[in-house]
Amino acid sequence: MIIDCHGHYTTAPKALEDWRNRQIAGIRDPAQKPRADELRITDDELRESIEANQLRLMRERGLDLTIFSPRASFMAHHIGDFAVSSEWAAICNELCYRVSQLFPDNFIGAAMLPQSPGVDPKTCIPELERCIEAYGFVGLNLNPDPSGGWWKGPPLTDRHWYPIYEKMVELDIPAMIHVSTSCNACFHTTGAHYINADTTAVMQLIEGDLFRDFPTLRFVIPHGGGAAPYHWGRYRGLAQALKKPLLREHLLRNVFFDTCVYHQPGIDLLTNVIPVDNILFASEMIGAVRGIDPETGQAFDDTRRYIDGARSLSAEDRRKIFEGNTRRVYPRLDAALKAKGR
Amino acid sequence: MIIDCHGHYTTAPKALEDWRNRQIAGIRDPAQKPRADELRITDDELRESIEANQLRLMRERGLDLTIFSPRASFMAHHIGDFAVSSEWAAICNELCYRVSQLFPDNFIGAAMLPQSPGVDPKTCIPELERCIEAYGFVGLNLNPDPSGGWWKGPPLTDRHWYPIYEKMVELDIPAMIHVSTSCNACFHTTGAHYINADTTAVMQLIEGDLFRDFPTLRFVIPHGGGAAPYHWGRYRGLAQALKKPLLREHLLRNVFFDTCVYHQPGIDLLTNVIPVDNILFASEMIGAVRGIDPETGQAFDDTRRYIDGARSLSAEDRRKIFEGNTRRVYPRLDAALKAKGR
Repeated sequence: MIIDCHGHYTTAPKALEDWRNRQIAGIRDPAQKPRADELRITDDELRESIEANQLRLMRERGLDLTIFSPRASFMAHHIGDFAVSSEWAAICNELCYRVSQLFPDNFIGAAMLPQSPGVDPKTCIPELERCIEAYGFVGLNLNPDPSGGWWKGPPLTDRHWYPIYEKMVELDIPAMIHVSTSCNACFHTTGAHYINADTTAVMQLIEGDLFRDFPTLRFVIPHGGGAAPYHWGRYRGLAQALKKPLLREHLLRNVFFDTCVYHQPGIDLLTNVIPVDNILFASEMIGAVRGIDPETGQAFDDTRRYIDGARSLSAEDRRKIFEGNTRRVYPRLDAALKAKGR
Repeated sequence: MIIDCHGHYTTAPKALEDWRNRQIAGIRDPAQKPRADELRITDDELRESIEANQLRLMRERGLDLTIFSPRASFMAHHIGDFAVSSEWAAICNELCYRVSQLFPDNFIGAAMLPQSPGVDPKTCIPELERCIEAYGFVGLNLNPDPSGGWWKGPPLTDRHWYPIYEKMVELDIPAMIHVSTSCNACFHTTGAHYINADTTAVMQLIEGDLFRDFPTLRFVIPHGGGAAPYHWGRYRGLAQALKKPLLREHLLRNVFFDTCVYHQPGIDLLTNVIPVDNILFASEMIGAVRGIDPETGQAFDDTRRYIDGARSLSAEDRRKIFEGNTRRVYPRLDAALKAKGR
């Protein structure tokens, strides 16, 4: 089977965005603040938004299952305070849960956290527990920069983040390190901030010794690891200069890269440089890059074609990338699949 | 001949750093502020610092000429005000000029600017003119984030920067887009801030239409273009979504990538994805990554080996990367070489 470990609900019914806009307006003018139960989206509306979009493409591309989380660019943790983020995360996670219930064979959830700049991350734990325990989600998205492009918080190796990591270890779930919208005019959200955050996270993890404290903690770095695989020589050299172990030991026991790299040469580099056991199939479809590549006539985000086209991969390598690695990194996904005989 | 378009004076005599430390101390305590003429470095000291380092490696690696600028991480434009940056830039540029006079066949200068956060970039023009006209420098380094990792200024496409671009066009010189030290704990200077800045600059240039206003303006994006070539499909797709022309027209008439990518697979990707006319040889030797790669037994920053080893390149391609492209992008370098019959 083929598992896409990186899908967001980018096609949610318009009512969600309308509710959010009212919530944002309510920060300054409490009279405009909507109640959570004023958001009404029917199962039929959810079904339609998925069947016409993600599920249609998954069928066309032969993908079986997507790990599905709220739209990353809409998390916007920089807006409002913890209460605002908390209500918004709860609503977004619940919608992903409902999608996973409507299409139990095709979608399983990953949680958005109610992060808020300067707020102790331990405040996110109740929502995380609810998603994992009540909703059957199998992972989470952790925003390394809840300030939205200003990078005002500490690096991922700081003890600030440890409450989340302790809970992740306890629940045996991985985090995808994924920023949200940039409100810094220097950083285009999907063209700079996303990729920079991936690169930044990798270097933070190289600089620190986080996995000495959390030997079983697992992170997925999306978008093919940002710049890291392309500059793998630089990162090996910097690790050496910092007197760290080889990256294979220092990083790759705990860090995995997804395949959201939207052309064949990029996937060829990724699969040549990074050990196959550290690569998880993903497409982030209907996301940052929705068009057709005029050079191939295919969708930029149809990453299955690039994995199929990567000549250095064996059939067994592809099986690992498409399924085996993701089941290993997301043990709750593996258990859920096994419970269904898959 | 082989021209390295990206070298910094990272091996300057210790007296320079001592003077700078006193200058920084003088920001808070004017009694400690040194006069410029208190910095005394003899020609013999300069010679020794170059012969034992850059020139030794250039000879070992068969490189003929380096475009040489002040140490990037020491520019630290975020420290002090314009007067501090101005005095510091003048000193650093003069040292590079003296190196270029001591070794006229091997070094030619590129200017550091006296940028300062929030200060109009036109204040940098006198120093730039001095470097080009009096020192015979052939380019400049432009710091897109003088705030040092906080990205508080406008993007490169903003009119804020136009005075520099107008002067560059008038003088017919390119700028390498190169940040300095990060003082943001999230961004390791050479492992995250440098690479992120490259990626950020490329995306800013895609998002804007700067080259419509300045059709002959030329930028060199160092470190192999950050993440851009690895994610070239993403950038082609984002440009398409933004209704921009193909990157070949929108970007590659004006933007060039250097070869500071420290392993063979990275250079293979760069040379496969980016047209050969847009690639300039560079190594940034004795820079971010100074060690020996245990996988090859060679220096990480010995990028000539990777260009020689890139199987898709013809002899003519290599000639362009090693020399022809750089002479085209830096016409003042070409003129200086021709004047010497080279």
